[in-house]
Amino acid sequence: MKPTSTNVFTGIPEQLPEELFECILKQENIVIERIVSKGHITPVGQWYDQYRDEWVILLQGQATLLFEETQKLIRLAPGDYLLIPAHIRHRVEWTLPDFNTIWLAIHL
Amino acid sequence: MKPTSTNVFTGIPEQLPEELFECILKQENIVIERIVSKGHITPVGQWYDQYRDEWVILLQGQATLLFEETQKLIRLAPGDYLLIPAHIRHRVEWTLPDFNTIWLAIHL
Repeated sequence: MKPTSTNVFTGIPEQLPEELFECILKQENIVIERIVSKGHITPVGQWYDQYRDEWVILLQGQATLLFEETQKLIRLAPGDYLLIPAHIRHRVEWTLPDFNTIWLAIHL
Repeated sequence: MKPTSTNVFTGIPEQLPEELFECILKQENIVIERIVSKGHITPVGQWYDQYRDEWVILLQGQATLLFEETQKLIRLAPGDYLLIPAHIRHRVEWTLPDFNTIWLAIHL
């Protein structure tokens, strides 16, 4: 086993016509994913409704999440994290338009 | 359910006589932990030998890990992550002395 490290802030294409989703680690009960947004949002009228809990941390950039039930907006800056329980409908309402917003999402 | 966010860079005591380990999330098959080091290292001659895989990302600061089998040093800067498989003996050889090095460790 030769451990090596990878950097979460590197290896991002210059152009991002779509939001970038990449699996960093997939094991039996967990998926760790890097997401890069650059002005991307969840399509209007759509909600994420996930069958398992998701823990998410924003590492770079800025974003706003909207939760359907409470209509609460949560603004996220670097270092902000939260647990989104399964079936709590939410959407990415806004991300910085001209800068890569980098998330780690852990699907539990 | 009222989702709120917490920031991983905040809520750190001014004085850190010992390395700080805090559980951020504990579920059936996973523990997410914040670790804050300020010059702390694994005691000389000791190795971590964990019974499950650990995925770790350094978010702030700098650190060096040493792996016993290969005697390989890995220098970590913000954003660097790696998977440390179970029973791969390793130690924290160095962390920045005058600055908080913040890690997320996910025990799988």
